Amino acid sequence: MERNAELIAVGSELLLGQITNTNAQFLSQKLAEIGVNVYYHTVVGDNPKRLKSALEVAMKRSNIIILTGGLGPTKDDLTKETIASICNRTLVLDKVAMESIEQYFRKTKRKMTENNRKQALVISDSHVLKNEVGMAPGMAFIHNEKLLMLLPGPPKEMNPMFVDYGIPYLKNMLGINEKIVSRVLRFFGIGEAQLEAEIEDIIEKQSNPTIAPLAKDGEVTIRITAKYQDNKEAELLIDQVEQKILKRVGKYFYGYNESTLPIQLLHVLQKNHLTISSAESLTGGLFLEELTAISGASSSVKGGIVCYTNEVKQNVLNVTEKTLKQHGAVSAQCAKEMAENIRTITKSDIGISFTGVAGPSPLENKPVGTVFIGISYKKETIVKECHFAGTREAIRNRAVKFGYHQVIKMIDS
Amino acid sequence: MERNAELIAVGSELLLGQITNTNAQFLSQKLAEIGVNVYYHTVVGDNPKRLKSALEVAMKRSNIIILTGGLGPTKDDLTKETIASICNRTLVLDKVAMESIEQYFRKTKRKMTENNRKQALVISDSHVLKNEVGMAPGMAFIHNEKLLMLLPGPPKEMNPMFVDYGIPYLKNMLGINEKIVSRVLRFFGIGEAQLEAEIEDIIEKQSNPTIAPLAKDGEVTIRITAKYQDNKEAELLIDQVEQKILKRVGKYFYGYNESTLPIQLLHVLQKNHLTISSAESLTGGLFLEELTAISGASSSVKGGIVCYTNEVKQNVLNVTEKTLKQHGAVSAQCAKEMAENIRTITKSDIGISFTGVAGPSPLENKPVGTVFIGISYKKETIVKECHFAGTREAIRNRAVKFGYHQVIKMIDS
Repeated sequence: MERNAELIAVGSELLLGQITNTNAQFLSQKLAEIGVNVYYHTVVGDNPKRLKSALEVAMKRSNIIILTGGLGPTKDDLTKETIASICNRTLVLDKVAMESIEQYFRKTKRKMTENNRKQALVISDSHVLKNEVGMAPGMAFIHNEKLLMLLPGPPKEMNPMFVDYGIPYLKNMLGINEKIVSRVLRFFGIGEAQLEAEIEDIIEKQSNPTIAPLAKDGEVTIRITAKYQDNKEAELLIDQVEQKILKRVGKYFYGYNESTLPIQLLHVLQKNHLTISSAESLTGGLFLEELTAISGASSSVKGGIVCYTNEVKQNVLNVTEKTLKQHGAVSAQCAKEMAENIRTITKSDIGISFTGVAGPSPLENKPVGTVFIGISYKKETIVKECHFAGTREAIRNRAVKFGYHQVIKMIDS
Repeated sequence: MERNAELIAVGSELLLGQITNTNAQFLSQKLAEIGVNVYYHTVVGDNPKRLKSALEVAMKRSNIIILTGGLGPTKDDLTKETIASICNRTLVLDKVAMESIEQYFRKTKRKMTENNRKQALVISDSHVLKNEVGMAPGMAFIHNEKLLMLLPGPPKEMNPMFVDYGIPYLKNMLGINEKIVSRVLRFFGIGEAQLEAEIEDIIEKQSNPTIAPLAKDGEVTIRITAKYQDNKEAELLIDQVEQKILKRVGKYFYGYNESTLPIQLLHVLQKNHLTISSAESLTGGLFLEELTAISGASSSVKGGIVCYTNEVKQNVLNVTEKTLKQHGAVSAQCAKEMAENIRTITKSDIGISFTGVAGPSPLENKPVGTVFIGISYKKETIVKECHFAGTREAIRNRAVKFGYHQVIKMIDS
């Protein structure tokens, strides 16, 4: 079977511009990784006639058709029904899906309405793809030598279903053996242009593995991708390229693949049996929130104080009145006391603090983007003064990322 | 001319999943506002054969075809060339565009290469749409009774060009006077299926305005859309439908349009001159983080304590040892003390607390998803016991949303 795929997203909310078709991006990336060419994306509304027309067009020009959306319990969810009718198949109850739907309602103690039962119906003689996050199962089958796959619309259900069950099914049916190995190197504290300039000659010389830099959310990643039959050989080639790159820009490197700065920090804390607490003003709890979003955080995170007012800084966090009066809340002195005090109050190995101006207005005559980050560890407390650009959200995010990176560097050094 | 539009985005980077097709969302929203129905989105690569095939499909099923991307100076930019060839037209030099390109290079003192001249070529006998941000002009023309429009790919060029020149051209050619008004009602605490079941008869009876429910991130929205010549009349009709809906499910309603639960809570706090603080265990600061992400939060948010360990619950938040020993940290009693103590410690009008099991493992023999939420306000402290399903992330999100909603309800009642 040729490996030409078309993605069809079903949902009037996409055609009304209420949401973006991020599913197409996710699926395209994953399909590229296994060597499947995506030639078309299509979006069509919750309308059987037009869905039928879109599917007919797709059947003519593509061999693999992956549909997302329209598997839910409401009346305008009709992807399954339409596809079944086009392919002359019926809908049958899938017992496993039905049980998991009933279990969901028992667990959440909510009343199950009749239309929820609809979600357990699958196209006859199809391979059912388990939904481990939501209720609607996916399904896949071959019709007239075309491979059709139906996936739910919500990304948090679709993404794991496709990775865990969709891709293995595709690889099996398409007989994909050739592997693509890729490794992502993650950097913080260097811009994309600068990083690319530093390793330009390495990028140009490489064809397999290839090297692709990408900037996102204040970080830069480099994806090294090798196509090979032999896994070990590919890994070895990637290792060599990685070494060349890290020789030039290794000091900005912090982790691999899906890692993030908080994951990396948690890893370093656990490895060194260290505990941390934070005192946050402008970041409002963001530092701790991202860290505790990671499963296993309780071994290293003690807690923290969000001190959004000077009153809380003084009365709960014990910042001295003198400091607040003489230096202000947005000052190196205040950041220092915040970091030291949260460390003492919570009896943690490390105390980190954030105080600054997230905007939109300046504060204490300091411009928007001014942030002081204090870190108290072992016998010293360092304070970094930063000036971040961008929106309130960007400033808070940059500050927190800077904080993670600084703590990782301090522990590792 | 019928007002059925199809959007075709041209660019291999979309099919590789390197970027999302945000242009489709933007254009869809703008077209909906002027009453043009978008029935299909298509994405196709920088490949003349497949672009031709996509255009042929579009010409059969749509009357208005808007293409984005592929107008740049490089070799793989070939939208204009392909469309001109399909429509038997030639490319001609647009003097105004050429002047603006030359001016750009004079201004930036960069050397103009020959391929930049390509950007000043437009399809013969077309209406040229000025690019005030970049170099490539857009164009529009009628071919075989179909309206075709070509726009540049980068959103910062495409967006203003479409709003300033594309929409006026469309409205003029289509003779559009009528307007579309839409209003979104936001609900929390009710599932999509249940909400739809409650108002099924209202939805079915309506054709103008139309009613469309949508579930996202544990919330449900209802979009009411009216097509009318007279704005006032439309608003009135929407009001009537809204009243019918709220009569049935008003107790789950919390806000309009782009509002969110934290925005709504902040609004209610500000209106009532109330301050709030939180004591967070499983949510790790998420409640405060989302609230302080909103500009203006400092008027109502004092701060909070993230107590991820029992030690911090006891020593910093003053939860009694007796409570932790007899009831455990995941208990109504602990939630009650946490809410009351954070209120006292920070001298806030309202104290809210979150303690529970985010997972992946059970805690104190309580299953994953068990959450106690305490709210101390005026002379009472209420504690809600919840059981949320889903991932660690989903449980934390649901808990925090539940908290916002409860506080709003308590203040408003």
